[in-house]
Amino acid sequence: MQLKFDYNNIMQYAIGVQGVKDAEIAADMPLMQKAFDEVMSAGGNGWQEWMRLPDTSDAELTSILQDCESIRKKAESLVVLGIGGSALGPLSVLNALLHLRHNELPAKKRAAPKFYIEDNIDPERMRALFDVIDLNTAYFNVITKSGETSETLAQFLIIYDALKKALGKKEAKKRILVTTTIGKGTLYNIAQKEGFKIFGIGNGVGGRFSVFSAVGLVPFAILGVDIRALLAGARAMAAACKNPAPQKNPALITAYLQVKSMQKGRNISVMMPYSDALKYMADFYCQLWGESLGKAADKTGKQVFTGQTPTKAVGVTDQHSQIQLYTEGPFDKVVTFIGVDNFRNVQPIASDPDIDGCGFLKGQTLNDLLKFEKRATRFALQKALRANFTITLPEINAHTVGELLQYFMLQTAFAGALLNIDAYNQPGVEEGKIATFALLGRTGYEQKLEELQQNLKSADYLIEQ
Amino acid sequence: MQLKFDYNNIMQYAIGVQGVKDAEIAADMPLMQKAFDEVMSAGGNGWQEWMRLPDTSDAELTSILQDCESIRKKAESLVVLGIGGSALGPLSVLNALLHLRHNELPAKKRAAPKFYIEDNIDPERMRALFDVIDLNTAYFNVITKSGETSETLAQFLIIYDALKKALGKKEAKKRILVTTTIGKGTLYNIAQKEGFKIFGIGNGVGGRFSVFSAVGLVPFAILGVDIRALLAGARAMAAACKNPAPQKNPALITAYLQVKSMQKGRNISVMMPYSDALKYMADFYCQLWGESLGKAADKTGKQVFTGQTPTKAVGVTDQHSQIQLYTEGPFDKVVTFIGVDNFRNVQPIASDPDIDGCGFLKGQTLNDLLKFEKRATRFALQKALRANFTITLPEINAHTVGELLQYFMLQTAFAGALLNIDAYNQPGVEEGKIATFALLGRTGYEQKLEELQQNLKSADYLIEQ
Repeated sequence: MQLKFDYNNIMQYAIGVQGVKDAEIAADMPLMQKAFDEVMSAGGNGWQEWMRLPDTSDAELTSILQDCESIRKKAESLVVLGIGGSALGPLSVLNALLHLRHNELPAKKRAAPKFYIEDNIDPERMRALFDVIDLNTAYFNVITKSGETSETLAQFLIIYDALKKALGKKEAKKRILVTTTIGKGTLYNIAQKEGFKIFGIGNGVGGRFSVFSAVGLVPFAILGVDIRALLAGARAMAAACKNPAPQKNPALITAYLQVKSMQKGRNISVMMPYSDALKYMADFYCQLWGESLGKAADKTGKQVFTGQTPTKAVGVTDQHSQIQLYTEGPFDKVVTFIGVDNFRNVQPIASDPDIDGCGFLKGQTLNDLLKFEKRATRFALQKALRANFTITLPEINAHTVGELLQYFMLQTAFAGALLNIDAYNQPGVEEGKIATFALLGRTGYEQKLEELQQNLKSADYLIEQ
Repeated sequence: MQLKFDYNNIMQYAIGVQGVKDAEIAADMPLMQKAFDEVMSAGGNGWQEWMRLPDTSDAELTSILQDCESIRKKAESLVVLGIGGSALGPLSVLNALLHLRHNELPAKKRAAPKFYIEDNIDPERMRALFDVIDLNTAYFNVITKSGETSETLAQFLIIYDALKKALGKKEAKKRILVTTTIGKGTLYNIAQKEGFKIFGIGNGVGGRFSVFSAVGLVPFAILGVDIRALLAGARAMAAACKNPAPQKNPALITAYLQVKSMQKGRNISVMMPYSDALKYMADFYCQLWGESLGKAADKTGKQVFTGQTPTKAVGVTDQHSQIQLYTEGPFDKVVTFIGVDNFRNVQPIASDPDIDGCGFLKGQTLNDLLKFEKRATRFALQKALRANFTITLPEINAHTVGELLQYFMLQTAFAGALLNIDAYNQPGVEEGKIATFALLGRTGYEQKLEELQQNLKSADYLIEQ
């Protein structure tokens, strides 16, 4: 494991009554042991199939790489059509490992196709996409685990239609790669009938835990990410988190400290990477943490309405937006800083003897300034008795990114076990889905449509001019 | 006022005990009246000078437009160097009003220069910028209200040095436009000495309330945004919010309902636009709401540790990430939906008789699908007794964007008055700034450096391998 974890500033000796006591950790050892056993014993089975993904065989990786190689060479753009777990894994990794302005690089400076992760159905965004890609050289990876996601199916229909009109049906078929559960679902059936290339997702791999399946690996391979190093990183983290001693197990101890802090009233979890490349790692975490742990009932069926609300901040940017609140507002959050020891380049701050008033920046680099600000912010939060901890990557590469993603997933799994909830379902989104079907006029949803139409709305609470 | 406000779903008749009662509104009328009077009587003076900005004279606007016209024609890229309030206003408006993939459009399809809002000091991001802009055709707008922001000064030193090396000092000077407080601060002094073009910010205009000052207007004018329509929108909203009847004053009633909900335990405010173009409006709101209201003490000096934590979600995208938590988790948030009646284009969903299983999308448009999902989500949240309200824009244009921004600022001002706190300072960021100066080795900060070095850290709470 190359990542380092520092949880000093969530402990009572650092932040007083807001913190967790050593005695609490000691008393809760059996709880942690139970959560550890639960996750480890189920590991790889049922909805924990994602735990097997880092061990994907080399033969399988070779096969994916071979399938993607020709596309990598032919494509000028790769567009992912997907939402939620089908988008955030690809987005977080590609933003971390490719050039930060990859799509704007001139073709000769870019070793890989441009990429677009289309995770919304905003018509203006769809038009914007058509304005900048060339259908003659674009490939589309349609990703939905269930094969039934309305948004993704809608995007697919639009794109396939445009491709057929531009290139003819025969060529259009070659431009669509489908990633879905093999053997079931609307998208699978369409792909079979039309003859699209299909990549499978295991039955027990949920969307938000699917980044190391074909969901991530296919776009990564096309964009030239070192998928072997990524999975090696995931394996290194998995190994570190097999340690049954909580204080040596980063995912287990931080899951516990978060849950404990939540029970003490810290219902907000801020994920704050000090790196633009790691910006979407925070979004990946936010989905995982929010959707997995936000549950009305526990495993016994008891109403618990639990969950810690994740939110993203970016350092140093949000020091000028959110740190005032984090330092002085309610004691309602835990801040996780993600730092990077060595960036992939060094940017000196030029000093000019003619320029007055900037002497304090003389001889410094942006690298050090960013690092100092992170350390200073961490210090200021601790002085204000605000719970925080820090994860440090030696540098950003496929291996460390693999470690970080696997850590997030394991931490979430442990937190789910500690809360005794099902971290793998999402019953709360059903009502909205059904209501959407009703509004679309789908047969069988007439009663829901009536309920929607009768839904209360008083003009007293409207303001219009 | 073209915006519509619907606060049905925050009232008790819609969401039960979680909601606000009519009787509470009635009882709190004097409080609202007091807050209204406080904001209105100070309007335009002291730190409320921002309230005068929508009335900027036509002569002044003409002068800004004239100054920017030649840059607009010559520049291939405009780079804003700024952070916090100096970045979020420009970013939110430009993302709303320009093409969603503006920088990727071929030059002949783009009526304005490419734009970059550089609001971080990540060295990898600075390198990425140099990789995609051409210094021969780039202009830089350096924005800092105080003229002392370390991050912006560091960026400026790097850029000015690069410009001088590439173009010579004489030409380099023409490429820097400075926006700062006239007459004071390091950046002002440098600009005077070097002969940069300077745009002023009024003394009483704080960073997060500065979008309608030169901070926003200069980049908007260069990028071709209709600044007259933007300010007309701001004036329309200002007029609507001069209504002393709270229930007809959108900023006042929603400020009250948020504050009241916060006092009932809803310490999280989710801003959720259903539009990619409005994505950064949520960031604009998050700074404003978080930094203005997150305060340790009220105006009497009493410790209050108040503030509601703002967080951003994007519809429909985050339905697949956060809605599970919002629907089933704790009753700890108020969700504000922002909807758009008419998008700037219509995207039909193609239907193909050969494609099975997608019949329910037949004859639909992305526009309707998005709108149905918004309505369905709002309905599902209300059914789960979750507080929410909805703001609707008839369409996204300079006028409605001006209305929305002015609404956010007025709502924040009213909320500050209701909480009896100073919404215009940010004392909580001082400790971090001082600690950064100490780490930079700045003279006068030796004691702080010692404090930092002695700062507690136990190896017991580190995990490294």
